[in-house]
Amino acid sequence: MHRSGIFAALALSAAVATPVVAQLDVEEQIETRQSAFTFASWNMGKIKAQAVDGTVAYNEQQMLAAANAIASVANSGLGSLFGPGTAMDKNDNTRLKPEFFDKPDKAREVAIGFAQAANKLQEIAANGGSKADLAAQFSEVGKSCKACHDEFRAE
Amino acid sequence: MHRSGIFAALALSAAVATPVVAQLDVEEQIETRQSAFTFASWNMGKIKAQAVDGTVAYNEQQMLAAANAIASVANSGLGSLFGPGTAMDKNDNTRLKPEFFDKPDKAREVAIGFAQAANKLQEIAANGGSKADLAAQFSEVGKSCKACHDEFRAE
Repeated sequence: MHRSGIFAALALSAAVATPVVAQLDVEEQIETRQSAFTFASWNMGKIKAQAVDGTVAYNEQQMLAAANAIASVANSGLGSLFGPGTAMDKNDNTRLKPEFFDKPDKAREVAIGFAQAANKLQEIAANGGSKADLAAQFSEVGKSCKACHDEFRAE
Repeated sequence: MHRSGIFAALALSAAVATPVVAQLDVEEQIETRQSAFTFASWNMGKIKAQAVDGTVAYNEQQMLAAANAIASVANSGLGSLFGPGTAMDKNDNTRLKPEFFDKPDKAREVAIGFAQAANKLQEIAANGGSKADLAAQFSEVGKSCKACHDEFRAE
């Protein structure tokens, strides 16, 4: 893979604008995006356990698999799962704030931030980066998650 | 990435036996594995739409992203999400048959089949494979999904 952050960002922007699959209905969009984030979060947890907290033995191959998973979520065209009518003003099963739809530039910015951070994490893992490097970039990915949560996710 | 199917299979077997993260509780294991499969299924849907059915315009970059996503799920150490007590005899929110735990060799076989098929799909997408090649391998991945569903998922 080894794509640059900029390239991924462009791909992500394109994915926001271009359908990648027959459009899912509102329920499916919400369930699918939550699944994508749960899968990413599980893999973030592996890196936290092995590279940050040290509560599980460090395994380079598992770290690469986890980084690949997180990057694959970040590059999967998540924008198509945030269609009109999928915010919490119209659904009980999401915490997406309605103002998401009023701030497309901010939405794009946080999505690009996630993709860039996740791609760098993947590059570090793929190129035999140290545990410390992985831990440092894990923190950057976490910040990119938080940037979106702070802006667009209700408490 | 470009790992061979055999290598991935070995990695997968290792992941089945080795904890990759602090063990999740039963509910978390079920939710996380369902999320992983939902994320994979969404990405399978993209390949079906673009490479098989032709209902969405073919986009090589999106096909690679989708294949990366499916392979990342297959190589994520899903075995750790199928711990004791996570079958349908003890939970209402899963269709995992209890006999899953009586057939570890079969479980490993279907898991390896999924990883090998998904890795080949990723290789095809990463190396500029044709739409027809991608469609053919999509079918193989689908068969690997079905092999597990037939064996271990209740109707």
